Amino acid sequence: MTDSTTAAPRTRLSPEERRRHLVDVARSIVERQGAAALSMEGVAEEAGVSRALVYNYFGNRAGLVESLWAEVESLWNVDPMPPVSEMLRDVTPRELFERRFIDNTRWYFDQIEQGGLLYYRLMSEPQLVESVEHHRRSIQQANVQWWADLLVEMGLDPERALVYSSLFNGATEQMWGLIARGDARRGVIEEVFLSSGLASLHHLLDSAGVTPA
Amino acid sequence: MTDSTTAAPRTRLSPEERRRHLVDVARSIVERQGAAALSMEGVAEEAGVSRALVYNYFGNRAGLVESLWAEVESLWNVDPMPPVSEMLRDVTPRELFERRFIDNTRWYFDQIEQGGLLYYRLMSEPQLVESVEHHRRSIQQANVQWWADLLVEMGLDPERALVYSSLFNGATEQMWGLIARGDARRGVIEEVFLSSGLASLHHLLDSAGVTPA
Repeated sequence: MTDSTTAAPRTRLSPEERRRHLVDVARSIVERQGAAALSMEGVAEEAGVSRALVYNYFGNRAGLVESLWAEVESLWNVDPMPPVSEMLRDVTPRELFERRFIDNTRWYFDQIEQGGLLYYRLMSEPQLVESVEHHRRSIQQANVQWWADLLVEMGLDPERALVYSSLFNGATEQMWGLIARGDARRGVIEEVFLSSGLASLHHLLDSAGVTPA
Repeated sequence: MTDSTTAAPRTRLSPEERRRHLVDVARSIVERQGAAALSMEGVAEEAGVSRALVYNYFGNRAGLVESLWAEVESLWNVDPMPPVSEMLRDVTPRELFERRFIDNTRWYFDQIEQGGLLYYRLMSEPQLVESVEHHRRSIQQANVQWWADLLVEMGLDPERALVYSSLFNGATEQMWGLIARGDARRGVIEEVFLSSGLASLHHLLDSAGVTPA
């Protein structure tokens, strides 16, 4: 295994640094041009190394794609929120709702700013369809249920709680594209999203005759 | 080409009727068990015909999947809405918004009730990933833009209009799963969706200082 045939400028990197660099180059290609544009040759060329070196690190294109997907997963890999009942020890349901709605939204939008474009681009990679879909659904289901549980604690019936929670979960997903593609400013997205969420929640509680605790 | 070897009860169907019947059987399998459970053998067995007959009509599993996808497409195949400017000849933007928001939501939910489960199941069929994604995005983009245009006519700035329109577009997509899987009653979904949309819109217009025409 040698990469001494390339003419491009080279620096001495440790294997870990070299691997990191190649992943970064691959990521940049995917972010700029889409997943379909990713090839071992393209990465080698842009990184200024031989194709053989890229093959040595990732085996084949599928291995490279998996490394990019691991990037996305590590960004979103956080402990799930504790059950609602545990979190309600020191705060009222309404306080918990308003605090988490704001904090979680910001955290989520931060993650999108850091890795959303890569995730978005990888969604169209055939090899990852199942992983992406599974990841999306598992995060989604846990979230929808958590928020529905909290709305029930606030006094809403379980069916309306589920619908409202799903509605804002879907809305959150849609903000993804806007943030990742830069179609609107982050501050405006956050403002419209949070104020729409709170205004519609208050309306929903009012019309259900709920006085939130 | 003969299917005289099957022992299952047979009726004399025209080729069109036979084809229709086989598509219905395939659809039912996918709706009940998911796209991965679809096979030429399974359709033949459930329809009470020979495998050869199913192959004759659809060529192979891919052809059968394409026929199911055509079902979905025909259900959603409607003329796009005329541009906002054209529709504003006889009504104010606010009247147009409220009328279309209610009518379109109901139409959309009707379509989901009729074909949403099939669509939902086909989303995980690898062969259709690109078609589904392309179909989703093109409907989505046209819709997001149409509603954003109307919100601008109501006096909102284009950036907030785009965010709000995207938000409710994402929310609509999420209702899909609820309706298709039967997780909540249609009436409750419609009520929460419409009232959340209108309450948050009024709040948004108020805080932007817009007096809607």
